[in-house]
Amino acid sequence: MYIGIDLGGTNIAGGVVDDDGSILMSMSLETKVERGSEPIIEDIATIVKALSTEYEVSSVGIGIPGIADPHTGEVLACVNLNWYHVPLRASLEPKIGLPVFIDNDATVAGVAEFQVAQKGHYKNAVILTLGTGIGGGILVNGEVVSGHHGIGSEIGHMIIGENFYICNCGHNGCLETFASSTAIIKYARHLLAEGETSECLMEITGGKPELINGRMIFDAAREGDALANKVVDRFVKYLSIGIINVVSMIDPEIVLLGGGLAGAGDFFLDKLRQSLDALKYFKDADVAKIEIAKLKNDAGIIGAAIYSKMHQAQLE
Amino acid sequence: MYIGIDLGGTNIAGGVVDDDGSILMSMSLETKVERGSEPIIEDIATIVKALSTEYEVSSVGIGIPGIADPHTGEVLACVNLNWYHVPLRASLEPKIGLPVFIDNDATVAGVAEFQVAQKGHYKNAVILTLGTGIGGGILVNGEVVSGHHGIGSEIGHMIIGENFYICNCGHNGCLETFASSTAIIKYARHLLAEGETSECLMEITGGKPELINGRMIFDAAREGDALANKVVDRFVKYLSIGIINVVSMIDPEIVLLGGGLAGAGDFFLDKLRQSLDALKYFKDADVAKIEIAKLKNDAGIIGAAIYSKMHQAQLE
Repeated sequence: MYIGIDLGGTNIAGGVVDDDGSILMSMSLETKVERGSEPIIEDIATIVKALSTEYEVSSVGIGIPGIADPHTGEVLACVNLNWYHVPLRASLEPKIGLPVFIDNDATVAGVAEFQVAQKGHYKNAVILTLGTGIGGGILVNGEVVSGHHGIGSEIGHMIIGENFYICNCGHNGCLETFASSTAIIKYARHLLAEGETSECLMEITGGKPELINGRMIFDAAREGDALANKVVDRFVKYLSIGIINVVSMIDPEIVLLGGGLAGAGDFFLDKLRQSLDALKYFKDADVAKIEIAKLKNDAGIIGAAIYSKMHQAQLE
Repeated sequence: MYIGIDLGGTNIAGGVVDDDGSILMSMSLETKVERGSEPIIEDIATIVKALSTEYEVSSVGIGIPGIADPHTGEVLACVNLNWYHVPLRASLEPKIGLPVFIDNDATVAGVAEFQVAQKGHYKNAVILTLGTGIGGGILVNGEVVSGHHGIGSEIGHMIIGENFYICNCGHNGCLETFASSTAIIKYARHLLAEGETSECLMEITGGKPELINGRMIFDAAREGDALANKVVDRFVKYLSIGIINVVSMIDPEIVLLGGGLAGAGDFFLDKLRQSLDALKYFKDADVAKIEIAKLKNDAGIIGAAIYSKMHQAQLE
C-alpha cells in the first residue's frame, strides 16, 4: 500500500491506495496556510501515521501546488502556500519513517489519469487541468516529465501573447491568464468595465459582476449572450494555441483536459477541436486527440500514491 | 559504419560515419527541388551505393527539412522541398538493401550534438538551430523526442504572439517569424518601409534594403545603430520567450543554440541570458544553461548516421 497526499491551499487530503489505484481509506485536515510550513508538515505526518495504523504502507507521495526538486524533495516554490525552499522530504521522513516522493499536483494527477484511469495505455500524453490556474502533467516515452531542475510541466506559464493583466508569477502573457477560470472571469469583468453589456450575466448575477464565475459565463454563452461568447471564443483561441504549442514540441498521442472548466461540455469541446484543427502545422496532420480526464477530485491522492510506488520501484 | 544523409533544399550531402561519430568519407549532389521526389530519392540511392563500396555499412539515417513519421519512414511534409506524404523509406530501402531511419534535420543535428559532441553527457537537452527558419531537437530522459505522430520537436512553430507577417506554415505568431534570420531581416525592412532610418545599414548595403542580412544587422547593432538594436532587442525578447516556454514545459539541463545566428557572439548571448533571467518562473529558479552548439555543418550527416545506429540497436 502507498499513501498519497494532496496538499492544497484549503485542505491536506490523504489516502491509502492499493496497487490498482483504489483508495482504501482517506482523511483530511484543513491546511490553514497562514500557519507556515512547519505545522502543516506536522499535520501531514499525523495523517500518514493515522492512515498507516490499519495498513502496511511502503511509501508516501505528495502532490504540491507548485514546484519541487524531485531529486532532493525540496519544495522550490508554492506561491499559494507562500512556501519557498521548504525541505519537505527532509522534514517529513524522520517523522514518519517512510520514504517520501514529491512532485507537482498536476503532474501526479496526470500519473493517476495515465497509469490508473487509462491503465498505462498511453506512452506520450499530456494533461491540462483548467481550474483557477492551469496545471500540466506530461508523459514522454512512458516517463513523467518533471524536468532537470524540477520546474518542468508548468504548461500554464507558457507565454503565448500579451494580456491586460499580469500573471501571479509576475510575467505577462502566461497561458493561465487566458485560459483558466480566473482568466475568463477577469476578461468578462474587463469587458463590462469597458462598457460592454450582457443582460444575461447581469440577470444571473443579480447585477453584480463580482459574482460572475466560470460556469455562468458558459451558461450565458450557450444561451447566445454576445459578451459571454466573446469571452468563450477568446478562451478557446488561446487554449488551442497552448495545446498546439504542446503538440509542436512533444506531439503527444492524447491531451486530457481536467479541472472545473473541462466540464463545460460539448459546446466547448466542439469549439476547441475546430480551433485546433485550424492551427495544425499542415492540413492533414494527425494530431493528439482531445478528451476529458476521467478522474475528478481523487486524482491528487491516487496519483501521489502511485507516483511514490513508481519512484520507489526505480530505487529498488 | 553508418551512412548519414543530410537532405537540404540545395544539396543532398552524405557521409560514412564510424561509431565515434567521425566522418570517414563524404559526397554530395545538388538537390534540384523542382525535379520532384523520385529523382531525388534515386540520387540518395546513388550516394549510398557509392559510399558503401568502400565501407561495410549497416544502416542509413536521413535528416529531412520537415517532418516524418519515424515509425513508417514516410515524409509527411517538407514545405521547402514541396514534398507531402512521400514514402521515402519504402522507396529507398529496396534500391539500397539497407535499413533506413528518417527524422527531422534539427532532431538529428541534436543527436550529433548530444551524443557525439557532448558525448551523451546530457539526458535532458534541447537544441535550437537559428537559421532561415528555426529547427528544434529535444532529448527527454535520454531519448530523442519525435512525438507520437512524428510532428514533435517543431519548436520553431510554437505560437508566442502576433506578428506583422504570416509564417510559411500559414499561421501567425510562430517563434521562427520572430527569431530566425528571415524574421530579423523582414523586421528591419519593415521598420525602414515604415519610415525609420538607419545610416549604418544604408551604408553597409549601399542603400539597398533588399541586401540586408542577419550578420549586417548584428554588426550595425554592435556599432550602436538604433534601428538595428531595436531589431536585435525584439529578436532577443521573443527568442527568450521561446526558450522559457521550452523550460516551462520540459525543463532541460541545457539549451544549445546552433545555426547562423548563434554565431552572433557574446553581444547577443549576454542580452539573451539577461532577458531569460527576467523571465524565470521565480527569482532564484535554477534554469537551463545556454550554450552554443559545437558542431557546425557536419552535424546533419553525423547526426543522421548516429540516429540510424541508435534506432537499429533498438530493433536488434
